[in-house]
Amino acid sequence: MPLGEFELIGRFFRNPALETAGSPEHVTLGIGDDAALIAPSVGKQLVVSTDSLVLGTHFPADYLPGNLAYRALAAAVSDLAAMGARPLSFTLALTLPEVDEHWLQGFAEGLAEAARDHRISLIGGDTTRGPLNINVTVFGEVRARNVVRRADAQPGDLLCVGGPLGDGAAGLAVALQQALPDGLSDQARDYLFQRFWRPRAQCELGLELAGVASAGLDVSDGLLADARHLATASDLALHIRLADLPCSDALLAWPAEQRREWMLGGGDDYVLLFTLPVASSRCLDVWASQGFQVTVIGEAVAGSGIWLDAGNGYEQVAQPGGYQHFQGSSNA
Amino acid sequence: MPLGEFELIGRFFRNPALETAGSPEHVTLGIGDDAALIAPSVGKQLVVSTDSLVLGTHFPADYLPGNLAYRALAAAVSDLAAMGARPLSFTLALTLPEVDEHWLQGFAEGLAEAARDHRISLIGGDTTRGPLNINVTVFGEVRARNVVRRADAQPGDLLCVGGPLGDGAAGLAVALQQALPDGLSDQARDYLFQRFWRPRAQCELGLELAGVASAGLDVSDGLLADARHLATASDLALHIRLADLPCSDALLAWPAEQRREWMLGGGDDYVLLFTLPVASSRCLDVWASQGFQVTVIGEAVAGSGIWLDAGNGYEQVAQPGGYQHFQGSSNA
Repeated sequence: MPLGEFELIGRFFRNPALETAGSPEHVTLGIGDDAALIAPSVGKQLVVSTDSLVLGTHFPADYLPGNLAYRALAAAVSDLAAMGARPLSFTLALTLPEVDEHWLQGFAEGLAEAARDHRISLIGGDTTRGPLNINVTVFGEVRARNVVRRADAQPGDLLCVGGPLGDGAAGLAVALQQALPDGLSDQARDYLFQRFWRPRAQCELGLELAGVASAGLDVSDGLLADARHLATASDLALHIRLADLPCSDALLAWPAEQRREWMLGGGDDYVLLFTLPVASSRCLDVWASQGFQVTVIGEAVAGSGIWLDAGNGYEQVAQPGGYQHFQGSSNA
Repeated sequence: MPLGEFELIGRFFRNPALETAGSPEHVTLGIGDDAALIAPSVGKQLVVSTDSLVLGTHFPADYLPGNLAYRALAAAVSDLAAMGARPLSFTLALTLPEVDEHWLQGFAEGLAEAARDHRISLIGGDTTRGPLNINVTVFGEVRARNVVRRADAQPGDLLCVGGPLGDGAAGLAVALQQALPDGLSDQARDYLFQRFWRPRAQCELGLELAGVASAGLDVSDGLLADARHLATASDLALHIRLADLPCSDALLAWPAEQRREWMLGGGDDYVLLFTLPVASSRCLDVWASQGFQVTVIGEAVAGSGIWLDAGNGYEQVAQPGGYQHFQGSSNA
């Protein structure tokens, strides 16, 4: 007799590490009823985003369930960070082909680690039998006037990125055990593997950006594609200087052409991309002193589209670049 | 070239029928950013529930996408009704094997109908390529002190159900085009088909129950299984009189044995099951005058377990009864 869904939820997901990782004071009623009850703090609004993770064509087949759980939750939390919101809680809707207790044990452990790292509590869920599908819906809070949208960038604002670009795509290559460059050290390989499977959503930076950045989002579809979302929503053009794009030491093991492709078009970096009014540029020094790795990579200008200076002045980027096609991570 | 996910969302899901079906004043920021912003009314809390719908083994293969969408949203909203909450908004995470514009058109239409019927607005979503999976996360609001939980029934309370039982299972038999009884009229068949594909969550009744019912949930796993959830959470026993279970005229076309099986163990009825303090029993007359079909089917007593009087006095029900196994609809 298969393990009932209710025992399943109870056994693997009802533990303090998952249920109190975030801000339990916001949760009036958690797992176990028809629904959960939550409330944002006084004066704040609730930020909601949903993300599904499916094992696609270009996905490592030999994944560890704990990594899968970590990645699913971190990717969803990244959307909260992008809004300048503080993570509070999440629901998990898990569709599984079978009840494999070993798999579930690993999954729950990875989920608990991601919950702890991002300070977010599991408040409810649903389990269904079917092809593997991991849906995470995350809740955060922010003052409405401080929320970082995509739409409010102004010409003259600095375009900034919160961390290295291209690691997500290079990490996928590592995870897929593709041909790797000779110069890639074991340490660099491990770093990239972690960057793919265990991305850390930039929540602390996101809180700094609340009420400061004029617009922002997270780089999940690739820099050019996400920059285009911001430019379109804000009805302006973005200038990007290739030479200023930050990349990790690990990525330097690849040839320049490959690095460029991944930094511009690779997805799943989960670093924040945002515009900063010049009047707030002193924040850059403050953030640097706090250990944030924020890099100015261009600026917003009147006009439309994405313009790249690859060493010969700005040229408009014709193609979306990142994975704009149907398969891809997405937004709320 | 496949239709991009962003155009897909824009084309099929960005329409006023979906975005303003509920209470737009609660939505500060809707579809199109990294996340949506919502806020409950002053003094109320947000109720959250998530549900995934997968085409399982015992699922009609010749479904209409509009029906699938309707059923997915209505089933999720039913959890809000069970809590006594007013529906506000929902997110949709849609995993699809391919971009079929005809399918999406039908799906979006059914979703818009369900959104209108339940007064709930689409505020965000996610699209992914993979085996079909429809995840809906719904948000409602309720005053914390009025919320209808599973845990607060008291011995002596009346056990009530908000509508006919067994229609969900009979509707599935109709949808699966199984052998149907000769006496089943076309009208009755259509009624049951609609009850399966287009269930109406009992939101209006749920609002009546807020602050009045001592405990409650919705019948999604089958009467006996759901009654057991309530009894366990409230730490008491429930007495149920078989002769008092309400069933539709359509169900009368089946033999008594089949009716009994479906009324007790069939899932997907999405009617509310709740306990009512005797002191509030005058509500029964008020509800009847308002057109609600509430039936008293038993009572809560000290003890444990589910006890059924099938004509020879109360006997304890040993087996869970409904679909307690891994595949099934579930809770928040």
